[in-house]
Amino acid sequence: MPVPHLPIDHACLTVWGKDTPGIVAAVSALLTRNGANIVQFDQYSDNPEGGAYFQRVVLHRPELSAALPDIEADLEGTLGAGFELEWTLRDMSVPQRMAILASTSDHCLLDLLWRHRRGELPVSIPMVISNHTNTAEDVRSFGIPFFHIPSQGPDKSAAETEILKLLAGNVDFVVLARYMQILSDEFITDVAVPVINIHHSFLPAFIGAGPYKKAKERGVKLIGATSHYVTKDLDEGPIIEQDVARVDHSMTAADLQRRGADVERAVLSRAVLWHAEDRVIRHGNHTIVF
Amino acid sequence: MPVPHLPIDHACLTVWGKDTPGIVAAVSALLTRNGANIVQFDQYSDNPEGGAYFQRVVLHRPELSAALPDIEADLEGTLGAGFELEWTLRDMSVPQRMAILASTSDHCLLDLLWRHRRGELPVSIPMVISNHTNTAEDVRSFGIPFFHIPSQGPDKSAAETEILKLLAGNVDFVVLARYMQILSDEFITDVAVPVINIHHSFLPAFIGAGPYKKAKERGVKLIGATSHYVTKDLDEGPIIEQDVARVDHSMTAADLQRRGADVERAVLSRAVLWHAEDRVIRHGNHTIVF
Amino acid sequence: MPVPHLPIDHACLTVWGKDTPGIVAAVSALLTRNGANIVQFDQYSDNPEGGAYFQRVVLHRPELSAALPDIEADLEGTLGAGFELEWTLRDMSVPQRMAILASTSDHCLLDLLWRHRRGELPVSIPMVISNHTNTAEDVRSFGIPFFHIPSQGPDKSAAETEILKLLAGNVDFVVLARYMQILSDEFITDVAVPVINIHHSFLPAFIGAGPYKKAKERGVKLIGATSHYVTKDLDEGPIIEQDVARVDHSMTAADLQRRGADVERAVLSRAVLWHAEDRVIRHGNHTIVF
Amino acid sequence: MPVPHLPIDHACLTVWGKDTPGIVAAVSALLTRNGANIVQFDQYSDNPEGGAYFQRVVLHRPELSAALPDIEADLEGTLGAGFELEWTLRDMSVPQRMAILASTSDHCLLDLLWRHRRGELPVSIPMVISNHTNTAEDVRSFGIPFFHIPSQGPDKSAAETEILKLLAGNVDFVVLARYMQILSDEFITDVAVPVINIHHSFLPAFIGAGPYKKAKERGVKLIGATSHYVTKDLDEGPIIEQDVARVDHSMTAADLQRRGADVERAVLSRAVLWHAEDRVIRHGNHTIVF
Repeated sequence: MPVPHLPIDHACLTVWGKDTPGIVAAVSALLTRNGANIVQFDQYSDNPEGGAYFQRVVLHRPELSAALPDIEADLEGTLGAGFELEWTLRDMSVPQRMAILASTSDHCLLDLLWRHRRGELPVSIPMVISNHTNTAEDVRSFGIPFFHIPSQGPDKSAAETEILKLLAGNVDFVVLARYMQILSDEFITDVAVPVINIHHSFLPAFIGAGPYKKAKERGVKLIGATSHYVTKDLDEGPIIEQDVARVDHSMTAADLQRRGADVERAVLSRAVLWHAEDRVIRHGNHTIVF
Repeated sequence: MPVPHLPIDHACLTVWGKDTPGIVAAVSALLTRNGANIVQFDQYSDNPEGGAYFQRVVLHRPELSAALPDIEADLEGTLGAGFELEWTLRDMSVPQRMAILASTSDHCLLDLLWRHRRGELPVSIPMVISNHTNTAEDVRSFGIPFFHIPSQGPDKSAAETEILKLLAGNVDFVVLARYMQILSDEFITDVAVPVINIHHSFLPAFIGAGPYKKAKERGVKLIGATSHYVTKDLDEGPIIEQDVARVDHSMTAADLQRRGADVERAVLSRAVLWHAEDRVIRHGNHTIVF
Repeated sequence: MPVPHLPIDHACLTVWGKDTPGIVAAVSALLTRNGANIVQFDQYSDNPEGGAYFQRVVLHRPELSAALPDIEADLEGTLGAGFELEWTLRDMSVPQRMAILASTSDHCLLDLLWRHRRGELPVSIPMVISNHTNTAEDVRSFGIPFFHIPSQGPDKSAAETEILKLLAGNVDFVVLARYMQILSDEFITDVAVPVINIHHSFLPAFIGAGPYKKAKERGVKLIGATSHYVTKDLDEGPIIEQDVARVDHSMTAADLQRRGADVERAVLSRAVLWHAEDRVIRHGNHTIVF
Repeated sequence: MPVPHLPIDHACLTVWGKDTPGIVAAVSALLTRNGANIVQFDQYSDNPEGGAYFQRVVLHRPELSAALPDIEADLEGTLGAGFELEWTLRDMSVPQRMAILASTSDHCLLDLLWRHRRGELPVSIPMVISNHTNTAEDVRSFGIPFFHIPSQGPDKSAAETEILKLLAGNVDFVVLARYMQILSDEFITDVAVPVINIHHSFLPAFIGAGPYKKAKERGVKLIGATSHYVTKDLDEGPIIEQDVARVDHSMTAADLQRRGADVERAVLSRAVLWHAEDRVIRHGNHTIVF
């Protein structure tokens, strides 16, 4: 029983930029005159007096695909003229294309593949790329192409170049599902699509490597995981979602790692879902999640 | 440092009724032509094809109080004409008047009074009414009038009549902060304002009296509390908020009661805050909470 | 990196019965004189004056398997003589044998198989039995035998007989991983090993069929799942573990079902782990979980 | 209905030190020969092979106070001779004496006083000391002495000396209930009793001042609070308890502070209860919480 995550004749409009009076009225009038009905409407302004404005609208328009160019032209004219706003409009019947990069750990990877197969994620998965081979059989049993690109030595540029070739033009965003290689600034620039990471700590606590060992050493009573967009500043990108689990003195660092794996896959799955549904708008180093 | 919960020149507009195309456009155009800017906008439709529509808008209008009659007249004309919608418009600088009914337990009562003193609740509290006297001194130390109306014998009509006299015209809603008397259908009708209750279980589990004893007997691993609007069907009214706490085999029914008290006061405080901020819209036996 | 869940030369001793003074001393003296060191010790008494006593001890004894008969004989003599206690002693290097019964839903089934493969569950899985065939390929890809036993018509006795034949002598406990058939009283008696179920509600709320639909109708703000031992009273057996997830007005019954699936698999996995580690002691309709 | 937190003829024994075989047997035999029955028994060893051992026993002994010297002498002989263990034995009918240091914030302070009045905390509160006067009336309404010791200028030694004079000999532990002064190393040494602090962040994230502002800037999706023992290393002492609350993009730093206040008072109350019940054993920079 697949989930109706790809509704026909529905589009998602996101709008963000400088807050000025009249945006809601302008957008809703525009949609009405283009024959679209508002199904869902979320809005946030961080300061009504000259702050930033964020909006997500799910709209229904019979024969949407034929109407899209007109709506886009009207948005261009309306929002481009009187406002300082940017926007995206996406036909929700077209799944976003998501590539997954992984290493040996399979918990985040398999959870995404399994949710995709259940119809819980409105995406297509054109490829999984790993610097190890242990998950190849599992991945392919889901009917997903698996590519092995090893990361050898300190110079990662060859591997990154190869990855970029596979991704180019084929994906709308990339998920690092416990991919244990640090991506270069050049890669982040050249990939030119959003990259979502899962970090195995409650950021900004235990930044960097070995967070469960650090958590054990500090004696914390909760451990966590953080999903964020990747930027050139390691572990510093805009946070999409976080969660925690309770631990106690009797648990070893390995126990924390196992308990944490459940948090990691849950947090990453939610972040991916929200991104794929256009619920996340980046603003500086923050996210608005509708 | 009181919380700015009573913002000047801001109003909260709630709209609900039959969903038809064009509501967002109509409302936002109306606000624009009345000089109001939309600060916050939440919307929900349970079915865009002929379902029910719900909307909450926080708007800013310089010199609001002078403009309110015009906005109300415009709403009456606009929403009354082409739509099947109901609405409320409330000046947010005017606190809602909240009466509290209590019995011997003080945890919910004191938490509300203390949050009110801290400026966390946008309400005034004209009175606390109790069928016991043990909390009188505490209540009055917060500068709040305390009235003792004992509930004696099976005929509660005299006590209810007395309570109704105190409330009439003086309050916008009533909170039952662990008030241990069942109110009659007549009282619910005659009080003519919303009544919010806190039930000491995770409804619909352990309906009726003695929920912690029942929870202990059933051996549950979580206990909960539920805040709901009071209707003529005991413990069956629309749920506003719920939460739970973890318990284990070593805890007695009295331990569950103590642990539960923390959940009760937290859940009731959130329900009261959301109601006072016009975030809760009732729809049949459900609530939409924006 | 498999988890060391099957430690060599360790045993788990559980003790339960009438609480009388001196049990801890008697058991610890017994272990000392049998050359065993106490690694972990948990104890609970529901009433030191004539109540019930529960104890779980993890002990280390070099050359355990050779010593087990002597320790068992000593337990028989010591606890059988002066006390009214029952006990079990289990070599922790021998995994418990767990059969899984499933239907079409795969989320609980796959989570158990995947955790088993990761080394998170100290069990062996000799078989998965389903009344449908859709999960056969997945199950076998984990190297686990899959048996299809359809449930046709109102008379389930033939199917149950066939299941009992497969299980007899081969399993230490059975897990119903969203197995959508009600087992007969005869089956529960004849299977003669513990049977663990996952119910898709926060019991005792929404007992019986269609809990997510009922939850949507009641308008609850949290949904849950409950893992319990199966008894002849449907959905009334001793609860092992429960958990909840937050939901809101915008979610459909299908959304609740999807959100609930995550809670179900998490709750069932924890219940199975705790049972397999001998952490759960049944007492009437309750459980003590160490 | 006061909580029976001060049970007659019960004592709490805590034991910690080098793990060696036979400790459980030795302690339980000792208790048996001194006429004491074990009511509750918790034990933990971080490594059975030469690691550290921790134990908490609640025991019942008729005419306890008369028997205490004999039990203590036996403990001294038994644990002092064959083992490298330290221990405490405390008559649970005698409340621990807890001083509270506070500043202007009242949420943690009032929650402790209110729980104490309800009988939830097995302590006496001989004094509240504040460097401000705003809470004086509230504190005294609970029947608790209030002392105002202002903290003026960079040299805090005069204030600290005055505080030490008030505390000396009168308290068993000190709680910093959002006391906004950094205590000197000399104070920590001279006070010679445990000092429990509540930090308004999920340590080690947002160490130091202004954590809610930092949390807003980082865009986290959860905020937290941490209760820990105070050591000479600011915000680095052994953590007793932590918890979190969910926040979102729409909340200001002031909103985080208000939401966080609920977490702070809950976390501190739990830490104080567990400390007062001798459930917390310090081990290096960690705690074992039974």
